[in-house]
Amino acid sequence: MLEAIFAPQSVALLGASPNPNRLGHQVFKNIVEHGYQGRIYPIHPTASSVLGLTAYPSVLDVPDPIDLAVIVIATDHVLAAVEQCGQKGVKGLIVITAGFKEVGGEGKERERQLLEVVRRYGMRMVGPNCLGIIDTISKLNATFAALMPADGEIAFMSQSGALCTAILDWSKTAGIGFSRFVSLGNKADVDEVTLLQAWNEDPHSKVILAYLEGITNGPGFVQVARQVTQRTPVVAIKSGATAAGTRAVSSHTGSLTGSESAYEAAFAQSGIIRASSMEELFDCALAFAYQPPMSGNRVAIVTNAGGPGIIAADAIERSGWLTMAEFTSETIQRLQRDLPSTANVFNPVDVIGDARSDRYQVALSAIMDDPGVDAVLVLLTPQARSDLPETAQVIIDLSSRHTRPVLTSFMGAYSLGPALELLNQHHIPNYPFPERAVSALAAMARHRDWQQQPEPEYAQFAVDQARVRELFAQVRQAGRVELGEIEAREVMEAYGMRLPQSRLARSPEEAVQIATDIGYPVVMKISSPDILHKSDVGGVKVGIADATSVRDTYELIEYRARKYSPNARIWGILVQEMVRKGRELLVGVTRDPQFGPLVAVGMGGIYVEVLRDVAFRLAPISRQEVSAQLRSIRTFPLLRGVRGEPPADIAGTEEVVLRVSQLVTDFPEIVEMDINPLVVHNRGEGVIVLDARIILQG
Amino acid sequence: MLEAIFAPQSVALLGASPNPNRLGHQVFKNIVEHGYQGRIYPIHPTASSVLGLTAYPSVLDVPDPIDLAVIVIATDHVLAAVEQCGQKGVKGLIVITAGFKEVGGEGKERERQLLEVVRRYGMRMVGPNCLGIIDTISKLNATFAALMPADGEIAFMSQSGALCTAILDWSKTAGIGFSRFVSLGNKADVDEVTLLQAWNEDPHSKVILAYLEGITNGPGFVQVARQVTQRTPVVAIKSGATAAGTRAVSSHTGSLTGSESAYEAAFAQSGIIRASSMEELFDCALAFAYQPPMSGNRVAIVTNAGGPGIIAADAIERSGWLTMAEFTSETIQRLQRDLPSTANVFNPVDVIGDARSDRYQVALSAIMDDPGVDAVLVLLTPQARSDLPETAQVIIDLSSRHTRPVLTSFMGAYSLGPALELLNQHHIPNYPFPERAVSALAAMARHRDWQQQPEPEYAQFAVDQARVRELFAQVRQAGRVELGEIEAREVMEAYGMRLPQSRLARSPEEAVQIATDIGYPVVMKISSPDILHKSDVGGVKVGIADATSVRDTYELIEYRARKYSPNARIWGILVQEMVRKGRELLVGVTRDPQFGPLVAVGMGGIYVEVLRDVAFRLAPISRQEVSAQLRSIRTFPLLRGVRGEPPADIAGTEEVVLRVSQLVTDFPEIVEMDINPLVVHNRGEGVIVLDARIILQG
Repeated sequence: MLEAIFAPQSVALLGASPNPNRLGHQVFKNIVEHGYQGRIYPIHPTASSVLGLTAYPSVLDVPDPIDLAVIVIATDHVLAAVEQCGQKGVKGLIVITAGFKEVGGEGKERERQLLEVVRRYGMRMVGPNCLGIIDTISKLNATFAALMPADGEIAFMSQSGALCTAILDWSKTAGIGFSRFVSLGNKADVDEVTLLQAWNEDPHSKVILAYLEGITNGPGFVQVARQVTQRTPVVAIKSGATAAGTRAVSSHTGSLTGSESAYEAAFAQSGIIRASSMEELFDCALAFAYQPPMSGNRVAIVTNAGGPGIIAADAIERSGWLTMAEFTSETIQRLQRDLPSTANVFNPVDVIGDARSDRYQVALSAIMDDPGVDAVLVLLTPQARSDLPETAQVIIDLSSRHTRPVLTSFMGAYSLGPALELLNQHHIPNYPFPERAVSALAAMARHRDWQQQPEPEYAQFAVDQARVRELFAQVRQAGRVELGEIEAREVMEAYGMRLPQSRLARSPEEAVQIATDIGYPVVMKISSPDILHKSDVGGVKVGIADATSVRDTYELIEYRARKYSPNARIWGILVQEMVRKGRELLVGVTRDPQFGPLVAVGMGGIYVEVLRDVAFRLAPISRQEVSAQLRSIRTFPLLRGVRGEPPADIAGTEEVVLRVSQLVTDFPEIVEMDINPLVVHNRGEGVIVLDARIILQG
Repeated sequence: MLEAIFAPQSVALLGASPNPNRLGHQVFKNIVEHGYQGRIYPIHPTASSVLGLTAYPSVLDVPDPIDLAVIVIATDHVLAAVEQCGQKGVKGLIVITAGFKEVGGEGKERERQLLEVVRRYGMRMVGPNCLGIIDTISKLNATFAALMPADGEIAFMSQSGALCTAILDWSKTAGIGFSRFVSLGNKADVDEVTLLQAWNEDPHSKVILAYLEGITNGPGFVQVARQVTQRTPVVAIKSGATAAGTRAVSSHTGSLTGSESAYEAAFAQSGIIRASSMEELFDCALAFAYQPPMSGNRVAIVTNAGGPGIIAADAIERSGWLTMAEFTSETIQRLQRDLPSTANVFNPVDVIGDARSDRYQVALSAIMDDPGVDAVLVLLTPQARSDLPETAQVIIDLSSRHTRPVLTSFMGAYSLGPALELLNQHHIPNYPFPERAVSALAAMARHRDWQQQPEPEYAQFAVDQARVRELFAQVRQAGRVELGEIEAREVMEAYGMRLPQSRLARSPEEAVQIATDIGYPVVMKISSPDILHKSDVGGVKVGIADATSVRDTYELIEYRARKYSPNARIWGILVQEMVRKGRELLVGVTRDPQFGPLVAVGMGGIYVEVLRDVAFRLAPISRQEVSAQLRSIRTFPLLRGVRGEPPADIAGTEEVVLRVSQLVTDFPEIVEMDINPLVVHNRGEGVIVLDARIILQG
């Protein structure tokens, strides 16, 4: 997939200028000079050759087939040139030229037309308005960047071209290599989803990095990412996450950005590791690219200094994903035997400041033989007796004989040069401070945890879709978008949720009959499509205990409704089962413009309102996901039961969320819905939807 | 202060060996070779000279006075040598030799003896078991480190000597300089408090950094730090914060570590900025050392690339301490006039990828003239047309003409060398990624916020100390450490807290009389020093509404108490005012071994138990601190009133916390106390201590 772009047999550069000051010249030079083995055709209106290669006035004049066309010509000429590429049978396009959607107005229209031509000829296009792409396997550098990165196993995509240049510049000094390097630009055709798909089974990439500002096709992204992360770790930075950031994004490329909660849910549900900074993105990348995967979360530390050992142990405990390994007694005996008596033989192992490489050797050998160690972090502060390159070599040798990840934090810089070079050459990732090494290890542990999750199971409950369709049609026919209480009730029932028994009475006598059927005490509520806040007009009464009170209440509610809302249509009075108290939850759905239905769950009332203790997942939600969702709210212990309370009906709660997920997936026209409260009784005693609200697309 | 250690007129090195393989040789070389201008005396049992300087067999043989003695001799000889130093009139000691407290057992005793000699002669001592100290003002390097740092305005202290060497090594490459650099070692005499005091008015240090594992004198630390931070920012990293870290600390130096909550409170109350990693420690240090203080929290960004601008805007919003500056219309007009039309003239200002230094110049000039900008962050990604050193020069020139902090994030590395060198030379801190620059700015904003806090006011309520002293004596006389309910009540009353009216009845008739006096309904409780869990034996009844019920209840409670606890002493039955419902808080005190009384406040019940929503402060607590403490709990909105509830009596709540603070400060023998619940009524309606528990030191 995307072969024509990343590994074309031949490349034409439209805008290959002989003038070294032109952008097109720089791109052409990059294609020619970095070892690309295919045929290269400069296209220029007048030049007969560029950098010694025969130039042609247009792609149509090139005698041979062309796989990829890279376009660096003036905006006004792009459309015609791309049309010619289509005619020529070009398969891939990289449009570096800017002046499209990002400038708004006619640029937007120009981009639409461009995409239309691309689609008509079945071509694939990166850009427009991008830096280009680099592929170190085919040695193709089709960018105007000043640098070619080293070979490596990191695939990188970025929605910001400028960030690409900064990263290339930085990677050159850090000695970090890439397999593929893509500036996405306006992503009119090829976007993050296309690239994830293309890189899914890429043998050349051990980790995929993404800098994202906005995702266009949310559900597609989640679906593809979920597959890719089964095999390859994906680490992403999503910017524009705050209000200020979003304003900055919109003044930048006008990307549509989904809500932060939706992104959080999307990353959680697709196994993408979210980096909180550019630095963390690359710290994780190095660990994934250089080291074997982790097979557990137990970390051993070897250090020649106590302080850094404590810092690392703290960071491990704080990470939430790692624990400190506990050594077997054999390991401890070996360490006691082989290390000086002043050494600490427990984790973190302290080989003491005067340690030379031999002491690291014995400590690391013992630890790497311990079956209770899943990863090793080697810390070193340069001391008078330290033999730095030798110690690096010891680590390299031992790590090559074991399959566990080994990371280092040689702290300092001035005297570390040769040692750091050795470590990097042999793909031992080194971090200047121990906390950064730990954060990379935590990412590895998270990735492993994700890969060990069982296949997601999606419940498919037997429901009455037809009834819901009918109800929605009725609501629309009545010119409404919000469902009335009885309608919302029916929808819930059609999707198998339990509600309080309830029937509409049209007279006091009928109300008494219903109450007798349901059993006392009952709740009575005014039923009117025109009265939204029933309590405000005295339209709700609870705990009505006998027939006389039912009659009295009926007349009182009816009187008040007519008095306070003289024009309201009154359908009658609902007589409802009075539900026992239980723990109260809220289940809410909003529709995110990029990601679709986003389901929120939280303990009701102030927990949601004041403490914002809510967890989100995108629908459809799997059984595993709803379980994780519920357990990720801080107040989950209240459901499990605190202070000797029995546990709540968690299984029943999860089922309601899954049924809601099924409902909003079946009916994309639901733009908002709330179950508030969902009353949750004790385990095995069920859950009841007390009130529901559904709003359809206008 | 500590002049003899940091700026001595003369130094003797005990253990100055002519043998270059000895540690003492290295230290002596460091003293001789880095420009120290005082007199230097090598002390060696046999050598007649070391490195060309006349050697003496002991300090007593030196003909001139000695200010400072640096000791690098075998552990066994230290005590005698220090005794001689005392006789000689030496004022300061740096004991590099190890083998003291850190080895336990006799080492501990040896350190005690050492300290005794030091104190007897009125000397001051750094160490033992340390790397030594460096002072770049007096050019004294009295360490065995291989490197001398550059001059600078950062004062650094570390409890880990190895970390010192790592930092020296790293600073050499990063081009960072220090004023003072101290390895504290075992801190038998000079500790973090001594150094903070010594550096309080140090004209050579613009920021103080500390790596701390444990603080010995908590209250002293808070008191001194609070003064120092009024003038000089102090940034600290406290390791050993987690359980794993603490285990690592204790196997390291055996430092006593206080509880994490106590450290959090200590840092908050003394204005110390806590760095979460070594990297952040130095990121903050650079900003404080190189740039003028911030006078507000509004940050303007200039960038040549959208992506990094968004990343920085996100980080600013997330920081909690900064906001994005909003430009005046003049600024926007100037930017519109002077920048190309494709530029973004709102914050973050995007001068576009092809910007050269002139465009940065016009953008920065306009922004720096804007009165709504308190700090400027300049971002740059190296692009084809970028003129990096020229842009650096523009920033340097403009920043020298303004008093606002200017930080940069030139992203990349390879092509940035000369530009970064220029920036560093001219003290513009550069960060490889924008998030790190923002975190440094946030530290500056925090420091400013702290400095603007008014002088703390400590309430001093009129209380009855004598009564409490008497009560505690009674309790001890009775062989107890836990106060009975009535005793605890009396303590609370003696400190001016309101409790439900309550009297002890010894008969049913007396109970009726008391209930009539108090007013119905009442609460009745068994009163016995031997029954701790009153409810469990049916010993508490609420809502008793009339005289007959009071009589019945009296006999029932008495009967049950005798039945379930036949041996309990029964004092009678308490008849209490039944307190109206209100919001419930918990006010608790524990005594931290390092910091003393630690006062916790949280909303009662599950908020504390499940959500751990508690805020801590160290007593004595000022009026401002209690206000911040209460507002820092997540559930504070419940006190302010949610869903139309009236606000609670926050002033009354604060007063109770202050009275508790006064109580536990007056009586250090209180090791634990709880008010649970404190019932808080609506604003102006007061707060009532419903139940209190006090435990004295055993």
